[in-house]
Amino acid sequence: MAVLTDAEIQQALGKLSGWQRNGKAIQRVFEFPDFKQAMVFVNKIADAAEQADHHPDIDIRYNKVTMALISHDSGGVTGRDVRMAEKINQIAG
Amino acid sequence: MAVLTDAEIQQALGKLSGWQRNGKAIQRVFEFPDFKQAMVFVNKIADAAEQADHHPDIDIRYNKVTMALISHDSGGVTGRDVRMAEKINQIAG
Repeated sequence: MAVLTDAEIQQALGKLSGWQRNGKAIQRVFEFPDFKQAMVFVNKIADAAEQADHHPDIDIRYNKVTMALISHDSGGVTGRDVRMAEKINQIAG
Repeated sequence: MAVLTDAEIQQALGKLSGWQRNGKAIQRVFEFPDFKQAMVFVNKIADAAEQADHHPDIDIRYNKVTMALISHDSGGVTGRDVRMAEKINQIAG
């Protein structure tokens, strides 16, 4: 799948609330009242990732969860990453 | 809780299969056949962390899970971290 250009990524981020670039990836930090609720969110994302066969990098720091997306096989951000970021935002509500 | 000395940490690591120092923390990387099995492990650790009220930093990279332990309030590795690392190794089997 084709890596998006910087302009295309900027355009996509304009519609992706909370997401930012971090190096070659895009990422968003989600914050919850506690660890338990953070894990509920992580498990919902894990199910969606399995369904899409596209897995974010997930960092859990007690009540803060960072989701990062990059298409490693393409070496950058692709349409798959943007679609998964949209899905994650839907789940976060 | 008292931060362990370098010598005490080295002694503890001698009995903690797979764990290493990383800066002020101790960490171990666990590898699984796939993401799904990685998530089963993460959820077991999450339950144990809630029970102990001591939460590792958890990084999920598809089938690889890094667990890192540090007592943030003490500013280093304490006996609580060593006990949680032992618990994590027990769960990993």
